[in-house]
Amino acid sequence: MNEQLLLKNVRQVLIRQEETIIFALLERAQFLANAKVYEPGAFGEATEGESLCGYMLRETEKLHAGMRRYTSPDEHPFFDNLPEPILPALTWQENPLKSNNINHNAEIRSIYEERIIPAVCAAGDDSQYGSSAVCDVICLQALSRRIHYGKFVAESKYQHNPELFQPIISSADRTALFMAITDETVEQQVLERVAEKAAAYGSDAAAETQPANPCAKTITTVYRDIIIPMNKQVQVEYLLERLDKPHENRKR
Amino acid sequence: MNEQLLLKNVRQVLIRQEETIIFALLERAQFLANAKVYEPGAFGEATEGESLCGYMLRETEKLHAGMRRYTSPDEHPFFDNLPEPILPALTWQENPLKSNNINHNAEIRSIYEERIIPAVCAAGDDSQYGSSAVCDVICLQALSRRIHYGKFVAESKYQHNPELFQPIISSADRTALFMAITDETVEQQVLERVAEKAAAYGSDAAAETQPANPCAKTITTVYRDIIIPMNKQVQVEYLLERLDKPHENRKR
Repeated sequence: MNEQLLLKNVRQVLIRQEETIIFALLERAQFLANAKVYEPGAFGEATEGESLCGYMLRETEKLHAGMRRYTSPDEHPFFDNLPEPILPALTWQENPLKSNNINHNAEIRSIYEERIIPAVCAAGDDSQYGSSAVCDVICLQALSRRIHYGKFVAESKYQHNPELFQPIISSADRTALFMAITDETVEQQVLERVAEKAAAYGSDAAAETQPANPCAKTITTVYRDIIIPMNKQVQVEYLLERLDKPHENRKR
Repeated sequence: MNEQLLLKNVRQVLIRQEETIIFALLERAQFLANAKVYEPGAFGEATEGESLCGYMLRETEKLHAGMRRYTSPDEHPFFDNLPEPILPALTWQENPLKSNNINHNAEIRSIYEERIIPAVCAAGDDSQYGSSAVCDVICLQALSRRIHYGKFVAESKYQHNPELFQPIISSADRTALFMAITDETVEQQVLERVAEKAAAYGSDAAAETQPANPCAKTITTVYRDIIIPMNKQVQVEYLLERLDKPHENRKR
């Protein structure tokens, strides 16, 4: 039984994912932006045409696919043609999703490389390419999981108030759907919590003066401008394809 | 330039590593103990005689060795015969260590499987083997890095007070050396900070009542009984082999 798939745990899962993301971005921010890590082929044939980040991501996904990671309804791979699991299949009896065809990872990866890295990391090159790429994989996996978890959030909202959602979905009114899933008070609380936690990590309780964590503000901005909007986009798309779908347990 | 290798940054690096460990253990504790993950061969031929945890660790190390992870003086592999880096070699001009032959990973792995997992995770089997093994790799890497970072801590202490350490090292008096590197006040501060941080993670600032994080106390105990003593053991061993060693940049 995977507790993280239960709708009653949505709130707690979001909080944990929040910490994973903040922590992963802070770990990445220890190194400079290292643009070379994102250039396809910059490290020659060894990375098989991919950038170093892409190579690490793909090789990690191959390994995790073997552990059946991408058979779980809350996980979405960045790459196709991953190997079959070496572990016996689990039946996801607890999967509450009515459909699971949305995958925004290509967009998440470009936004990560083009907007998040330059925002979170200081400019420049410190040669820490391997360390940067290891962190990148953890950041990308955490961002993908959080953004696609919008499916669980949307299903939970739907189940709490089907009378509200059914007519809006039937009319395919995206604007009305965006309004129905939006709770600005909750969004504000999330941003405040992110700001607080990002500032607290890396702090030294024994130190007399606390240097301000230079990333804390940026991470809050990433949450406000990228993570929350993309999560809401997933929620809307999930609800639009939800109706009249037979219950299916497998992703494409 | 890797800031984490500079002795002036020892304190900050330790605090960051502390957060990585607490966070990694809390992530692992989301799943049950899953003893099957640590049984060699429990998943058949696919894991090539290793346990699932060992298989994941070895495959991850192969990938990270390609990123030259284990050429860095603060990183120690659990497995031998790892592939050569696909990235060009870095020269670790900033390596402050005078020798680097100690590797306690075999012991760290048994202690992790036999003592830390049963302490941190609830007993039982929830079939989340792949997720558990992915977390295990992150925990083991973080524990290894923290414990072997004792070499940097010891070098820093030595450089602050060579007059104190030289005669003790010359006489190879382990007990005196243990006393010289021990600062009980600092250890107490570390434990308090760990307890505070472990309790804070996963908390929901907006919730009216905070459920106590059941792992926080256990993680502090792991720090007190395992991490700090093993780190001190590394410090003593490093200092004992430090004297009269020519400066070398490569590990065995």
